[in-house]
Amino acid sequence: MLFFTQCFGAVLDLIHLRFQHYKAKRVFSAAGQLVCVVNPTHSLKYAPTRCAAAQTSAEQGVLPPCHHHEAVHDPQLVPCTCPLYSCPWEGHLEVVVPHLRQTHCINILQGAEIVFLATDMHLPAPTDWIIMHSCLGHQFLLVLRKQEKYEGHPQFFATMMLIGTPTQADNFTYRLELNRNQRRLKWEATPRSVLECVDSVISDGDCLVLNTSLAQLFSDNGSLAIGIAITTSKVHNAEAEM
Amino acid sequence: MLFFTQCFGAVLDLIHLRFQHYKAKRVFSAAGQLVCVVNPTHSLKYAPTRCAAAQTSAEQGVLPPCHHHEAVHDPQLVPCTCPLYSCPWEGHLEVVVPHLRQTHCINILQGAEIVFLATDMHLPAPTDWIIMHSCLGHQFLLVLRKQEKYEGHPQFFATMMLIGTPTQADNFTYRLELNRNQRRLKWEATPRSVLECVDSVISDGDCLVLNTSLAQLFSDNGSLAIGIAITTSKVHNAEAEM
Repeated sequence: MLFFTQCFGAVLDLIHLRFQHYKAKRVFSAAGQLVCVVNPTHSLKYAPTRCAAAQTSAEQGVLPPCHHHEAVHDPQLVPCTCPLYSCPWEGHLEVVVPHLRQTHCINILQGAEIVFLATDMHLPAPTDWIIMHSCLGHQFLLVLRKQEKYEGHPQFFATMMLIGTPTQADNFTYRLELNRNQRRLKWEATPRSVLECVDSVISDGDCLVLNTSLAQLFSDNGSLAIGIAITTSKVHNAEAEM
Repeated sequence: MLFFTQCFGAVLDLIHLRFQHYKAKRVFSAAGQLVCVVNPTHSLKYAPTRCAAAQTSAEQGVLPPCHHHEAVHDPQLVPCTCPLYSCPWEGHLEVVVPHLRQTHCINILQGAEIVFLATDMHLPAPTDWIIMHSCLGHQFLLVLRKQEKYEGHPQFFATMMLIGTPTQADNFTYRLELNRNQRRLKWEATPRSVLECVDSVISDGDCLVLNTSLAQLFSDNGSLAIGIAITTSKVHNAEAEM
């Protein structure tokens, strides 16, 4: 009987997933778009100043040393790349992708345009929804974070970061699009480098920001579908040609 | 000497205005777009519940009675249309436009696509920037409001309302676009009717919302250029044809 109940539950989950997938595809009607269902990760703690040192170093063109420890560090190590605060990992830029895949089971998707379907938007802040996106020969990290900047007023922040240097990041433009209930919200910007740290991008508010009421208007049954597209930025290409 | 100083000041103002106009045109490069410089109006007080009664009536398809007074009102009177709170005016929908033009000196612009250039974004909340937009045979009201929903954290809210009924408003789509510093933010929605009251649209957050840091990123020398476009909504046209 228990076995039957579990099987039935699994079938229901599959039907629900399939239905969500169908709805997300319907919203973003472009043919051939990949829909990825992303489950939340509850973050236990946040320290807004965690990456201040790392960011300053990245701006100066130096890979950041970690300020968690007193020891002298290899400047090639990246302490900030993993957006999950509780993770003490640090490593070279080249091994960030395997770390995120293996240690945190973060999915990696291929394709120029994908739909990110974040589930369980009602979960309390702080919560993260994270995915990697492989596109145009690079890997990008999409982070959607629910956070209370003002106590009692959770907001959603979405940004895209290149797993690469700030100079490489300048060559791209990313677009996040929400489309539901006769409303459409589009955010386009140059991705930041993971060396600049996701925490500081979000605390600066230099990303797509949604208050709870807007997030509800764009959500369907507790899930938020975000259309993602990455292109090479024409301005930079033009400058490079000149 | 005083005369000379005043003349010189006026010339400087004109040069500054011309320069802002030029910059706004450069940002929104489409040819033939009209740029309108909009000065702020400092609002003395806000009462978030002011239009609750009006909104309920509008949803029920009845023109709202005014709740400021105890007297019996003509149901054709519109108490909420004037977004300036301190104004006790009420009148029929047909005379809202002359009231806004004559009493509040709100400009009216023609054209399908215009650029709204709000000046002095640094002014403390609450502040409004308002303009009327005549397009597709109707008049629309664009309201940009700086307001502190959370004390000490001013935000900017932008919305477009039709000076007409909710049924008429359903036939249109408006788009607000910010474009600067390699960032682009677009909001598209169906305009609300002025009968639904701008205060409730803003308190619901069902509009373009900008925090201070994003507003600064999109501003140029204290002015924010918002590209506005209005179209007839295709969904409704298609439904009407069916």
